[in-house]
Amino acid sequence: MVTPGLTGGTLDRADHLRNDSEALVAAMSNGRARLMKLDGLHPEVSEDGRLGWTTLADAPDDAMLILLGLDESARPHFAAYLPGTRAAEATPMRSPAMIHALTTLQPGEAATYAAARSLIDWHSRHQYCANCGTMTEPFRAGWARKCHHCGAEHFPRVDPVVIMIAEHGGRALLGRGKGWPPGRYSALAGFLEPGESIEEAVAREIHEEAGVRVSAVRYIASQPWPFPSSLMMACVGMAEDDTLTVDPHELEDAIWVERDVVRSVLAGEPGPFLPPPPYAIAYTLLREWAGV
Amino acid sequence: MVTPGLTGGTLDRADHLRNDSEALVAAMSNGRARLMKLDGLHPEVSEDGRLGWTTLADAPDDAMLILLGLDESARPHFAAYLPGTRAAEATPMRSPAMIHALTTLQPGEAATYAAARSLIDWHSRHQYCANCGTMTEPFRAGWARKCHHCGAEHFPRVDPVVIMIAEHGGRALLGRGKGWPPGRYSALAGFLEPGESIEEAVAREIHEEAGVRVSAVRYIASQPWPFPSSLMMACVGMAEDDTLTVDPHELEDAIWVERDVVRSVLAGEPGPFLPPPPYAIAYTLLREWAGV
Repeated sequence: MVTPGLTGGTLDRADHLRNDSEALVAAMSNGRARLMKLDGLHPEVSEDGRLGWTTLADAPDDAMLILLGLDESARPHFAAYLPGTRAAEATPMRSPAMIHALTTLQPGEAATYAAARSLIDWHSRHQYCANCGTMTEPFRAGWARKCHHCGAEHFPRVDPVVIMIAEHGGRALLGRGKGWPPGRYSALAGFLEPGESIEEAVAREIHEEAGVRVSAVRYIASQPWPFPSSLMMACVGMAEDDTLTVDPHELEDAIWVERDVVRSVLAGEPGPFLPPPPYAIAYTLLREWAGV
Repeated sequence: MVTPGLTGGTLDRADHLRNDSEALVAAMSNGRARLMKLDGLHPEVSEDGRLGWTTLADAPDDAMLILLGLDESARPHFAAYLPGTRAAEATPMRSPAMIHALTTLQPGEAATYAAARSLIDWHSRHQYCANCGTMTEPFRAGWARKCHHCGAEHFPRVDPVVIMIAEHGGRALLGRGKGWPPGRYSALAGFLEPGESIEEAVAREIHEEAGVRVSAVRYIASQPWPFPSSLMMACVGMAEDDTLTVDPHELEDAIWVERDVVRSVLAGEPGPFLPPPPYAIAYTLLREWAGV
């Protein structure tokens, strides 16, 4: 079983509690309840890669509590969102502190953080009803918002993203985006659109970005990616030929890399590219493809 | 290669045109351009399962045109959205006319319809900025909306949904939802949430709905589902045991069905359940699982 970074969270999401206001009040009154320690949206991370938690007493008075779930001892775990704040903007994905946190957190802990971060960020950018423009209110323990004007219910977005390599003659197609760290190459990626399957989105994106036609797309693995709330779906497609026509709006460069070279780069040897970080599913995808 | 219903659309989505206002004006002025014939959101379907098209001259004056893509001869194809209308409410998924259309349309034609329907419905329910409540304007050839007050850009939602069977001792777990046609059973399904992978969502949903723990989840296939805009991701998970604890809020009933029985039901023989319709990915999933 493939286990990408940011998967393996151990909290039971306890969906049945979200609509049960009595149970929810009990969970919030539970003296053992824990609140995720966040500085803005930056998590506290211990030396052994675990998240920091405090008690609900530390939640600001006007905070909204999001029920993340229950641990094995049925202890409720929450995250707090302060209406009107924009914590995500202060802790972007590429900040050194965020990269340090993602590098240090155990995958299951990062998964719990990912759920909290995506939800808090979603609330901060979705306070109004897209249907009628009225201010909405959170409900379902922070897992939805409701418009009391038009009655519309809004649920957190999860945006499916395909991330993939094309394969040709035992080589993988890697690309680099504009502004990436020097030497970094990775799998191509793009948002899946309405009206297409995963396999069709993979073929479209590889053709748009690199001019390569692929078929026989196979799914490898998936992971949540909380910047702000993507579902990364990693695939491999077999390329019909290896001629590249790079779209300069999408990619700065694209290269074909032999399987042996991918393997040695992932093993830490110097090579023609710097590999993606282990918490990114591109790393898992390359490992699976290279048979590491 | 598995080919579920609602996949195989043949239009090139021509992403490069969406941001190119000159090219877009040229496409709209192209005398060969085609407009999807829709009565509300109901498609015109020919006897051989193809969509009906007309010219842009038939678009209402105040319609917004969505660029669906180009055919092999570079002929632009559009769908029209009338701001302020709610066509989706008049043509729900379960209406006899809609079921007839889905049954009759060739899969690739249904895929083109799916993209148009999801986009039109998205515009109709997302006219306001979720970030600040201001009315937004479409841009990118109908593939996005922009808020001129706060600057936020909004893209059409695609909601990832897991749809799956648990497998135990050569049998598949099927369930029926409340209000389904008599005798109909199908795969279980549910929305994927922020902070989880496809495999984790599959395990969570099967446990929530039927009380069964699964592991070794494997991905089978995907399809777009335009009611209103889901990405259906079909999977199989291996159940640890076959004891069912059905959540009555989620399911009316759940049953284990032998592989031979699934096979004969899919072949049209009478059996303990009515199979899902061929355009639904549950049908594809059961065929793959049963080895038909």
